[in-house]
Amino acid sequence: MKSETKQKILEAGAAIMHRKGYHHTGIQEVLAAAGVPKGSFYFYFKNKEAFGLAVVDYFSEMFASHLAPVLEDTSVKPLMRLERVFDHFIRYFAEMEFALGCPIGNLAQEMGDLSPVFQEKLRDAMDGLTRVFAGLLQEARHNGELGEHIDISETAGFIVSSWQGALIRMKVVQSAEPLKIHKRIILQQLIA
Amino acid sequence: MKSETKQKILEAGAAIMHRKGYHHTGIQEVLAAAGVPKGSFYFYFKNKEAFGLAVVDYFSEMFASHLAPVLEDTSVKPLMRLERVFDHFIRYFAEMEFALGCPIGNLAQEMGDLSPVFQEKLRDAMDGLTRVFAGLLQEARHNGELGEHIDISETAGFIVSSWQGALIRMKVVQSAEPLKIHKRIILQQLIA
Repeated sequence: MKSETKQKILEAGAAIMHRKGYHHTGIQEVLAAAGVPKGSFYFYFKNKEAFGLAVVDYFSEMFASHLAPVLEDTSVKPLMRLERVFDHFIRYFAEMEFALGCPIGNLAQEMGDLSPVFQEKLRDAMDGLTRVFAGLLQEARHNGELGEHIDISETAGFIVSSWQGALIRMKVVQSAEPLKIHKRIILQQLIA
Repeated sequence: MKSETKQKILEAGAAIMHRKGYHHTGIQEVLAAAGVPKGSFYFYFKNKEAFGLAVVDYFSEMFASHLAPVLEDTSVKPLMRLERVFDHFIRYFAEMEFALGCPIGNLAQEMGDLSPVFQEKLRDAMDGLTRVFAGLLQEARHNGELGEHIDISETAGFIVSSWQGALIRMKVVQSAEPLKIHKRIILQQLIA
């Protein structure tokens, strides 16, 4: 029961924080959306910052669980799995009509230079995605799909950051075009 | 005299908005920093939104004037000028100790999906930088420095958005490393 309440608070909080960012998210608003009493919040979270950090983990875990079926399907070649990861996210952002953007990237923009604990948490979240891409590139290297001139760790980091940039551009052009160009350039030029 | 006051308000407002974003910037605070009376603000700007849009233009013009000497030095090959543009910005962000990030990217993240007029203004600002890069790539094509397989318009747009992403990463790792990796991958891999 306890962890169910915590999950409700996190889900409601994640949705609000995705829309409004960290600073504009009020605890009262989260509790009202979750339909739980105030005491519950402070039972699970020491303060708003601790809650914000848990929301970052919530998003990281949500994305990891979305990607798991794609990543683990070893019947598909690694670079094709990378393409499917991009396609998965393109659909995800299309469903939100290209508004909001990536919750991790948004919080990095808002909090990355303001709070050391957020900075570390967001760095970990981005490093997690970098490791996912590095794993696929490593598999591709083993399969002979990836040229020897590609530095796997640098390239994986670059894919994550260029993806974040494509998401910013998506917000101002309100279309999937920057994401599709990102996918095409990474797959057909950079690592082809 | 009039335009000097307007310039003072814009400079003070740009510095504050770079640090705090649009929503957290108060007009009173801007006027106090600029040392001008309240009436002046509404003489030059219809409202806060008009002021925010003028701040985006202020940043676009500031960056354009920073870059002009680099871009116009045709004694330097176009791809070397592109490298110098990256180096210029790496120094600029290093001077700010890798905090704050790009004011245009930050506002795109904050306002890109909230206000249609901001969206248009920020799209124009990013398109402006895209045209700068496209111009250099076009010159490089004429000089035979750029492979025929490179789509100039797409690649220029990709350089702008991947740069924005590198700046987000910079904020969470607090170093120039993502910017240097961006430069290396764009110049030595993507368009080499």
